[in-house]
Amino acid sequence: MMICKVIGHVWATKKEEALNGLKLMVVQEVETNEKNGSTFVATDSVGAGIGERVLVVTGSTARRAVGSDDRPVDCAIVGIIDSLEVDREAAQQKKSR
Amino acid sequence: MMICKVIGHVWATKKEEALNGLKLMVVQEVETNEKNGSTFVATDSVGAGIGERVLVVTGSTARRAVGSDDRPVDCAIVGIIDSLEVDREAAQQKKSR
Amino acid sequence: MMICKVIGHVWATKKEEALNGLKLMVVQEVETNEKNGSTFVATDSVGAGIGERVLVVTGSTARRAVGSDDRPVDCAIVGIIDSLEVDREAAQQKKSR
Amino acid sequence: MMICKVIGHVWATKKEEALNGLKLMVVQEVETNEKNGSTFVATDSVGAGIGERVLVVTGSTARRAVGSDDRPVDCAIVGIIDSLEVDREAAQQKKSR
Amino acid sequence: MMICKVIGHVWATKKEEALNGLKLMVVQEVETNEKNGSTFVATDSVGAGIGERVLVVTGSTARRAVGSDDRPVDCAIVGIIDSLEVDREAAQQKKSR
Repeated sequence: MMICKVIGHVWATKKEEALNGLKLMVVQEVETNEKNGSTFVATDSVGAGIGERVLVVTGSTARRAVGSDDRPVDCAIVGIIDSLEVDREAAQQKKSR
Repeated sequence: MMICKVIGHVWATKKEEALNGLKLMVVQEVETNEKNGSTFVATDSVGAGIGERVLVVTGSTARRAVGSDDRPVDCAIVGIIDSLEVDREAAQQKKSR
Repeated sequence: MMICKVIGHVWATKKEEALNGLKLMVVQEVETNEKNGSTFVATDSVGAGIGERVLVVTGSTARRAVGSDDRPVDCAIVGIIDSLEVDREAAQQKKSR
Repeated sequence: MMICKVIGHVWATKKEEALNGLKLMVVQEVETNEKNGSTFVATDSVGAGIGERVLVVTGSTARRAVGSDDRPVDCAIVGIIDSLEVDREAAQQKKSR
Repeated sequence: MMICKVIGHVWATKKEEALNGLKLMVVQEVETNEKNGSTFVATDSVGAGIGERVLVVTGSTARRAVGSDDRPVDCAIVGIIDSLEVDREAAQQKKSR
């Protein structure tokens, strides 16, 4: 799963019928080591709001989050992050092989 | 889903039979933080035109958009974007962990 | 689908039996905005030749192009590009949001 | 599989029901040739601890590691690395074609 | 498929049971235009040795190479490259559109 932040909404009237009723949010990947991550459009079924950090799944897995394997969805918000604890020492320490 | 812009057409006479009848468009990823995104060829079943911003799905999900899981398609336009609203503050704000 | 160019051949005697009989070509992604794209090995069932631009699918979709879902193939040429028309204005114009 | 290091935990109360009971860890890709790899959230069913190097699978394969194909999981720790032996000569030697 | 070189071994005692009996090799992508490619862990069923160039498949396709769709494998060596012939002219020539 990617760690993303919800940064916007998107509206599309002309679309595949199987997308009807899905809420589409703009999410941006939040990387520990990069300034600005990539931007995607994800469906939301957990009620995420602008500015919240969320867990996002992609690919065939995203279809598991929208109730039907037939919907053309490849990016879905599956959780709202309450808290994220990173061990800075482990993260920054060079691998020693 | 990726946010893309339709930038062209592609024609291929010699191709897999299962691709017959599909409209093939050239799309370019539109990123918030990069100048020029990657370019792909996507099928279009929603009637997108040159210059329009569209929602594009990839991988196995693209086959959900072309009516049959047997067609060798891995990139499909599934919606035309009417409006896209990004909260600049949320997008640019550094993550605070 | 990726827009690629066929740049070579590859031979492998010791391989998974299910790959027998497949023609393996070296393809290179042709990006509008990058000098040199990534290089992959793709199966070819449409008769592509060195130097030709082709449409390439990846992932589970590639197995749709080789007749059986059991063959360990994740990259396949599915069409030879006759002509590709890109609207330079649409491609270079900055997104205006 | 990616070679990753476990660097943290993540908590999410509001999430897809099918994620209940899964342990979610923050993992960072450990690359031979890059300083800092990407960060992901992965499920853990092998008991990995902070600082340990692990094998991580992504995509549909991750669902094979969580007992059910219906869970919206696209990243999973499948092993704890005891030892990793890289032949520096093979790794650094330029390809000779 | 990716063109990779086998550069090492990896051992993991604590792992998903379904991985038992699989040989795990460290492979590095060999790109025509980049110095050092990414590093992955792949299963090997074709008997590849350190320093050999191999064909590697990823994603769901890798499970086709390990005998069972239930094994949590997303990267597999499927062939040992005997010879690879790249047309330098085709590879370096700028695309002319």
